[in-house]
Amino acid sequence: MRIVLDAMGSDHAPGVDVEGGVRAARRFGQEIVLVGREEEVQRELAKHDVTGLPLSIVHASQIIEMAEHPSQAVRNKPDSSMVVGMRLVREGKADAFVSAGNSGGVLATALASAGRLGRIKGILRPAISSVVPTLQGFSFMLDIGANTDCKPEWLVQFALMGAVYARKVLGVERPRVALLANGEEDTKGSAAVQQAHQTLRQLSLNFVGNAEGKDLTKGIADVIVSDGFAGNVAIKTAEGVASTIFSLVRSEIKARPLAMLGGLLVKPALRAVAKKLDYREYGGGPLLGVNGVVIIAHGRSDALAMENAVRVAIEAVNGHVVDTIRQDLEDAVTVLASMSPDGKSILSDHQASEEAS
Amino acid sequence: MRIVLDAMGSDHAPGVDVEGGVRAARRFGQEIVLVGREEEVQRELAKHDVTGLPLSIVHASQIIEMAEHPSQAVRNKPDSSMVVGMRLVREGKADAFVSAGNSGGVLATALASAGRLGRIKGILRPAISSVVPTLQGFSFMLDIGANTDCKPEWLVQFALMGAVYARKVLGVERPRVALLANGEEDTKGSAAVQQAHQTLRQLSLNFVGNAEGKDLTKGIADVIVSDGFAGNVAIKTAEGVASTIFSLVRSEIKARPLAMLGGLLVKPALRAVAKKLDYREYGGGPLLGVNGVVIIAHGRSDALAMENAVRVAIEAVNGHVVDTIRQDLEDAVTVLASMSPDGKSILSDHQASEEAS
Repeated sequence: MRIVLDAMGSDHAPGVDVEGGVRAARRFGQEIVLVGREEEVQRELAKHDVTGLPLSIVHASQIIEMAEHPSQAVRNKPDSSMVVGMRLVREGKADAFVSAGNSGGVLATALASAGRLGRIKGILRPAISSVVPTLQGFSFMLDIGANTDCKPEWLVQFALMGAVYARKVLGVERPRVALLANGEEDTKGSAAVQQAHQTLRQLSLNFVGNAEGKDLTKGIADVIVSDGFAGNVAIKTAEGVASTIFSLVRSEIKARPLAMLGGLLVKPALRAVAKKLDYREYGGGPLLGVNGVVIIAHGRSDALAMENAVRVAIEAVNGHVVDTIRQDLEDAVTVLASMSPDGKSILSDHQASEEAS
Repeated sequence: MRIVLDAMGSDHAPGVDVEGGVRAARRFGQEIVLVGREEEVQRELAKHDVTGLPLSIVHASQIIEMAEHPSQAVRNKPDSSMVVGMRLVREGKADAFVSAGNSGGVLATALASAGRLGRIKGILRPAISSVVPTLQGFSFMLDIGANTDCKPEWLVQFALMGAVYARKVLGVERPRVALLANGEEDTKGSAAVQQAHQTLRQLSLNFVGNAEGKDLTKGIADVIVSDGFAGNVAIKTAEGVASTIFSLVRSEIKARPLAMLGGLLVKPALRAVAKKLDYREYGGGPLLGVNGVVIIAHGRSDALAMENAVRVAIEAVNGHVVDTIRQDLEDAVTVLASMSPDGKSILSDHQASEEAS
């Protein structure tokens, strides 16, 4: 297997990206192709003992920056590490692409003609995903930012894709799927969520209904489906609240001499909690719905996070996620069509008009 | 001043509601009118020493339950504590209404013919609000659940109303107003958020741009504006994450003998943090945009929370929130109209069609 790693992606590129690639090559034994400015990548590689490791470099002179407008950047930078790297996957020269860069850029590259992987047949919109730590372990959440205003059928497809990923990669036999909403009752939610809710009830998914924000970290579902607006707000709120609480705990402990002594004693416990909440342990989330394995890592990734993002890519390739999504979507379209009076399902109808547009 | 308290509202009604009313009467010296089943309210009152306190009871035989469909419940229960209580405000017999009951029910009662306060002239949609604890103190957030699919002009009005509340009640001279979105850049957000963003730039509000979920508890704004779907998800996610972290910390400490000793020493510090995050300290959030002061308290309120909800009601009355919203909206309509080529503003246009419908 060959995994392409965007060496210029993270906030601290290329240092942590290259180091993550080196660690991944050592740990997993799969070939890592580092894409970026060759000289800079070489300089970083020289800092590590890479003897005998399956590492190679493909040169790309340009970089899509965090603040750039995604689709413009992709158009203007055909020799960027994202476009060059993704093209290796498209041309069958590699099995997966991993980047900690501008996530909109990764999405745009996957869909733009330059590095075009395109969408899986029938998929209306790809979704960005992430793991959410919970009391029991973790849930898998999508979309967290690719699509702000979602149609009901997009949400239904996110549910299908998330269930495939949970089954094939996370090892959950019959994943519980929930819709993020502003109330548990079926009647709660935006218009799109309410409609998606009705359709999800008709499919063979293990759909458990709506989940509220307060359930997000309770582990009540394996897959949490959301539009990219509320999903992004939820996941970033969770991140922000966790960091705020740790800040508050630190300053309240510092304000009390006895608590400072206690603080030393509870430090290992607090560290264990912080580790559970640490995105670096999860590496990255797949961009689901595109015709290939693409993993988006956190921009603030360090080498450990990058190493884990490569692990996620390997697992997604081994799990045949792309083929399974294609198959499950076909099955769902058939089920919905068989139940509909005119023999059409909302998934296939909109799909047709979408492909035509 | 006379404050109406729904004695049958909270999850543990009428016990905590009545006790909260007694505490508020003692602390603030304003008259508290307890509305609910007279016999049950009397029985609760008998548990306290109420000698000389300004308390009265108005009988209402029905209760709108948490799980009921709001507008149906309001129609079917004209003698409910919500309808009877709100009518006292509408008829000028009281200055504010406080309830820890079904928040949709409170909203529906305010708008239904039964207890109708109606909307402030020109306000398109009322919004439910809440205080969000931050590193610096707190922010004020709206809408957190009244309106799921929001038009841009509703969001703009939420911003205006939130700024009035922050100025008049929370004592922030020039409140910073932010729009909750999936990215800081002006171009991020749902279609409605992006349009609202443009309009807010034209008003004299201290609009500071978009806020991401991770900023919510950082205190970067005094007022956070959102649609009721994402706002609800955000606020409940924050609540859930805080409770999950405290659970994790507890169980990790228990798993380590030394940490258990340390845990005793840090307990006061952890309690101080928990107190900062405790909704009970904030009492309740105003339902802004209706023609009267209405405070919605958390369903899980205890007597302290109810007492504080009454305090919030008193502050909103003293701050002339309703009149100021009416005035500020008129000013904003004028400003937008003066900048528009056809002399109309998006606020007044939609307002006209809304009033006609």
